[in-house]
Amino acid sequence: MKDLNKMFKPDSVAVIGASNTPGKVGYIIIDNIISGGYNGKVYPINPKGGEIQGLKAYENIKDVPEKVDLVIMSIPAAFVNESIKDCGEAGVENMVVISAGFKEIGEEGAKLEEELVALSKEYGINIIGPNSLGITDSHTPLNSSFAQMMPPKGNIAFISQSGAMMVALLDWSLTSGIGFSKVISLGNKAGVTETELMEYLAEDPETAVIICYLESISDDDNFVKAMRKTTAKKPIVVLKSGSSNAGAEAASSHTGALAGSDLAFDTAFEQSGILRVSSMAELFDIGLAFSKAPLPEGNNVAIITNAGGGGVLTVDEMERQGLELVQFDEETKEKLRKGIPEEGSVNNPIDVLGDAPVQRYKETLDIVLKDDQVDSLIIMVCPTASADPDGIAAAILEEREKFGKPILVVNMGGPTFEAANHALRSHNVPTYVFPENAVDALAAMTTYAELEHREADSCIDDLDNIDKKAVEEIFAKVKADGRDTLLGSEAYAVAEAYGIEAAPIKLATNADEASQLAADMEFPVVLKIASDKILHKSDIGGVKVGIESEEEAKATFDEIIANAKKAHPDIVPDGVEVQKMMETGQEVIVGMIKDKQFGPMIAFGMGGIYVNLIEDVSFKLANGISSQEIDEQINDTKVSELLKGYRGEAPCDIDAVKEAIKRVARLTLDFPEISELDINPIFVYENGSSALDIKIKL
Amino acid sequence: MKDLNKMFKPDSVAVIGASNTPGKVGYIIIDNIISGGYNGKVYPINPKGGEIQGLKAYENIKDVPEKVDLVIMSIPAAFVNESIKDCGEAGVENMVVISAGFKEIGEEGAKLEEELVALSKEYGINIIGPNSLGITDSHTPLNSSFAQMMPPKGNIAFISQSGAMMVALLDWSLTSGIGFSKVISLGNKAGVTETELMEYLAEDPETAVIICYLESISDDDNFVKAMRKTTAKKPIVVLKSGSSNAGAEAASSHTGALAGSDLAFDTAFEQSGILRVSSMAELFDIGLAFSKAPLPEGNNVAIITNAGGGGVLTVDEMERQGLELVQFDEETKEKLRKGIPEEGSVNNPIDVLGDAPVQRYKETLDIVLKDDQVDSLIIMVCPTASADPDGIAAAILEEREKFGKPILVVNMGGPTFEAANHALRSHNVPTYVFPENAVDALAAMTTYAELEHREADSCIDDLDNIDKKAVEEIFAKVKADGRDTLLGSEAYAVAEAYGIEAAPIKLATNADEASQLAADMEFPVVLKIASDKILHKSDIGGVKVGIESEEEAKATFDEIIANAKKAHPDIVPDGVEVQKMMETGQEVIVGMIKDKQFGPMIAFGMGGIYVNLIEDVSFKLANGISSQEIDEQINDTKVSELLKGYRGEAPCDIDAVKEAIKRVARLTLDFPEISELDINPIFVYENGSSALDIKIKL
Repeated sequence: MKDLNKMFKPDSVAVIGASNTPGKVGYIIIDNIISGGYNGKVYPINPKGGEIQGLKAYENIKDVPEKVDLVIMSIPAAFVNESIKDCGEAGVENMVVISAGFKEIGEEGAKLEEELVALSKEYGINIIGPNSLGITDSHTPLNSSFAQMMPPKGNIAFISQSGAMMVALLDWSLTSGIGFSKVISLGNKAGVTETELMEYLAEDPETAVIICYLESISDDDNFVKAMRKTTAKKPIVVLKSGSSNAGAEAASSHTGALAGSDLAFDTAFEQSGILRVSSMAELFDIGLAFSKAPLPEGNNVAIITNAGGGGVLTVDEMERQGLELVQFDEETKEKLRKGIPEEGSVNNPIDVLGDAPVQRYKETLDIVLKDDQVDSLIIMVCPTASADPDGIAAAILEEREKFGKPILVVNMGGPTFEAANHALRSHNVPTYVFPENAVDALAAMTTYAELEHREADSCIDDLDNIDKKAVEEIFAKVKADGRDTLLGSEAYAVAEAYGIEAAPIKLATNADEASQLAADMEFPVVLKIASDKILHKSDIGGVKVGIESEEEAKATFDEIIANAKKAHPDIVPDGVEVQKMMETGQEVIVGMIKDKQFGPMIAFGMGGIYVNLIEDVSFKLANGISSQEIDEQINDTKVSELLKGYRGEAPCDIDAVKEAIKRVARLTLDFPEISELDINPIFVYENGSSALDIKIKL
Repeated sequence: MKDLNKMFKPDSVAVIGASNTPGKVGYIIIDNIISGGYNGKVYPINPKGGEIQGLKAYENIKDVPEKVDLVIMSIPAAFVNESIKDCGEAGVENMVVISAGFKEIGEEGAKLEEELVALSKEYGINIIGPNSLGITDSHTPLNSSFAQMMPPKGNIAFISQSGAMMVALLDWSLTSGIGFSKVISLGNKAGVTETELMEYLAEDPETAVIICYLESISDDDNFVKAMRKTTAKKPIVVLKSGSSNAGAEAASSHTGALAGSDLAFDTAFEQSGILRVSSMAELFDIGLAFSKAPLPEGNNVAIITNAGGGGVLTVDEMERQGLELVQFDEETKEKLRKGIPEEGSVNNPIDVLGDAPVQRYKETLDIVLKDDQVDSLIIMVCPTASADPDGIAAAILEEREKFGKPILVVNMGGPTFEAANHALRSHNVPTYVFPENAVDALAAMTTYAELEHREADSCIDDLDNIDKKAVEEIFAKVKADGRDTLLGSEAYAVAEAYGIEAAPIKLATNADEASQLAADMEFPVVLKIASDKILHKSDIGGVKVGIESEEEAKATFDEIIANAKKAHPDIVPDGVEVQKMMETGQEVIVGMIKDKQFGPMIAFGMGGIYVNLIEDVSFKLANGISSQEIDEQINDTKVSELLKGYRGEAPCDIDAVKEAIKRVARLTLDFPEISELDINPIFVYENGSSALDIKIKL
């Protein structure tokens, strides 16, 4: 992990490009550092020297009498790299490059950026940017940014790939009572990446939750493994733009980033425990909850409301989000009945009625929080004539102290709740206007809390019966033949080498061999013309099923070869493949999609000819896949119901399916040259399974 | 339609239960009416007479010297009905009952409410409530409500079934710059219903859009037909709580309403053209758009942004909502290039860059709005250092005047945009903080605009070849037999009577008859024991397929009867059914679910034994179903891809499927006694179709 401590907590900061002219970037940065209350040393750097904003200016970073912890670079792009060398020689280790004019402007800028990256490595400098708006740390305090963006102090770290979006969100957050530990504008991410920052922030005691606006992921296919460790320490919430096809296109024209598919992003986030959101409002709603409330111990929620309808809307959203409504036992209900009039409800959602005074809220709160079944509480207040928002807020704060459970408050309204919201938020109780947002935030917290129980060890690192060398040899032969597609017999051999149960297919180059192979396999068998150049094999009489004897196999070999020659006189077939005919089982598919960013992604689902229509498929990235994830992947599909024994049918061998997924994952990781792999169908039996049709393309 | 004009525009208002004691409901109402600026006559009614808040009070409504247009009733529930009689005798035609203590408190209150309904009918009084918070009309102006809720003037009509939620939303709306024409608290909906109010508001010139918070629908199964006419006049946006199972349970305990299933609500809203939303924020976001902007003429959207990332997020949400991104032609791009620097983008979403001055926004706006391809525009502003929100707002208002296209503005931020948002909204340009909300609102407007082209005539009113009498006779016989399930042969006869193509099934009561029926049908046939008491017919040897001759049919009859007797000596079978064996076709299902509220709902989808697992089903309410809706229903399923000829297969007879749906809809409407109907499978062929297994339960 990169040590970025001095990036955010420097004892000294130099601003290269510091200026005395108000309005200039180099002026604003110095001004922001000083007015932001930074109490370390500030060194303006300007070739003219003299004095800048009351501080002694140096002509070059090398002239500064001490080693500077952090440099903010704000000079034209053309001079940046030269200046980085000076910094490197002066022993600078952390830098934010504000200057624009790099990759984002095209080829020329991209060249400059390459040089910048090389220099950062040569001198060992951590660089944020270029094209960054800067960074802030409200605890240091340090506002080394170009924008007037020292945000309110708090414990949310906010990372943004877009400077404009960051400024927008900070402006908006001023109305929302949210506080930040650090705000980081990533810029072009040429040096320090978002994952490195996340790893650093996960260890930062001033940060409770990391929220990110991202347009791309810098890291390679090790992302999932690295992020799993990070999310085990801190919750990470990400808004990743470009989820649509058109959006991804617009995003890549915008940032020039080679984007992976959105499905792969979804899968990568989910497997790494990152919470992905789809709107900006959600990013902050969820960030707010994590920043204020403790984590729930389970997904059982109680609701207290003074408007029945609000309770119902809450329950509606809870069901969409998979949260459970606590069913109170008679004891709790009995206690509740003492304080709540008969027209109300002592069933969850508890309706304390529109005329509820503070005392009724308080007593109800106490009873509900005491109930061991209750993991978290949503409390809702409508501004009825009798409602006392401030009194209820005080009651919530008092009761909250007694129990460690998360309480999310929905104060449904505007001006009436201004004081109450302020009181609650400043004492670490998150508040929302609408119940849906509170539920979404609580659902995110619950999901995160459950990550604690995840089993995240890779289950494919130590598989037995793997013969990597055999596969290397097969692939070498295919390449030597100038082909990119494996013959069925070759694909079978690959499966065999990796312990994937499959119906045997062997290649016969003459009739006797065909007959011998068939005899070795047990009858009946199928004979099939072997050639990657003949596509519609059945149509030309190239496939014969149900061969029952050695003689028949012999004769059929000749017949198939003849048929092929007649249809394609110019093609020399590789021979005829003999495949054992298997008993029919439940059809599933196991396949692989190669993602540009995250590497092989394994697909599992219902097999058969209508795979693409039914779309009953679930995906996981192969790298680091855990046993629990494979179970989830199988259970996410409808075909899993059939495998488990649908409506009294005998269950199929799900362990065999799992084994096939594991081994396909291992195979596609071991051989990055595999560009496509599809096994459809695999027949799954009560015991074991058998891959029928294996397609592998290099 | 009820004439509710004097409810909202009365020349005189009487308040029964008027009071001189501040804080009392009867005081607040008089106070609200006067301070709300009402300029008609106000008559306080109080048994003590005298003077109330400076106005002459009358002891009884009958003492008022003129006929009063509107009565606000606010006396204890026990006295309400007596007072309604007085009002009726005094010629009152419109009334709002504020008093609580009716259905919502239980049995005793429900009895009072029944009397209230009877009286309202007897005297011809339109009653809103009881248990209403009152109504307001900001144009009259009249605030006859109990809550301090005279909202800002505008053109949104807001109907709410929950008083508390209404107060909450109005409080919140104070911060959002939304204006209302009328606000109506429905209360218990004993008299005037929400649909009657919608019908009235659809004709109200002061109302542009109707938004509703509802917990139940009062109207019967004619809802769809009635609402189609209403939505043709005005957009209606509904938040209906209780969409989840647990939520529906909580809702019915809350309001005592007998709720239909949420699926049926969804279907009813969709078929009637009502826009359903799932959150309160959405209700107002969409209401705002309709209240300010003209309707788009199509779904092609242009985006202008000064932050690339914001554009991408907009496109992401557009794809989720089915909106199209305009592809500009070279001419438009050429024009755009003149004003936008190279680092920006002249492709949609147009990126004018963070440093865009007002003039660049203005020129871009002009070019884009002129483009005929563009139906609507989303314009986004991030508060970058160079952004001038007020200047951009002025430019938008100027350009907007020249073209009649809807423009939705996303001002991403908080305090920076306060003035700009105010300027835009007060000149009828809707503004949003986040792009997702603007897109959702625009999508709703686009969907509504498309309703204009919907074909809403019922296509099942004049079907030929319907023999209703035959079905009546079959049902009469089933009932007379004391059964509730039809035999296969009876179900076939029902299908035949309604022109539903089916594989013939006839009942044979002896072997000769079986042989004769089989011969009439063409061989091969199936023989099946006929009894609604024998469930697992195959297991006891009660089914024999592939019967090829008269002799075989004869012998099989006896064999089946013998098998049945052996297995169930105590059951007397109805005979043996003879069914023609049909060629296999594409399997579909047509079924009916009876909704408590909306009547028969027709299901269509992929057929076969895994129907419940695959869940490829689409639903429409039968009542008033249009030809276009059946097309949509079929196209909504995956099996429609198979019917159209998947991957080069021959297409099936979709018209035959459509005909089956029509006739099942007609049948289930004509015979409300049908409680369950399932045809699974129907085989669909290249020409025609055939229902194989028809289950009908009464």
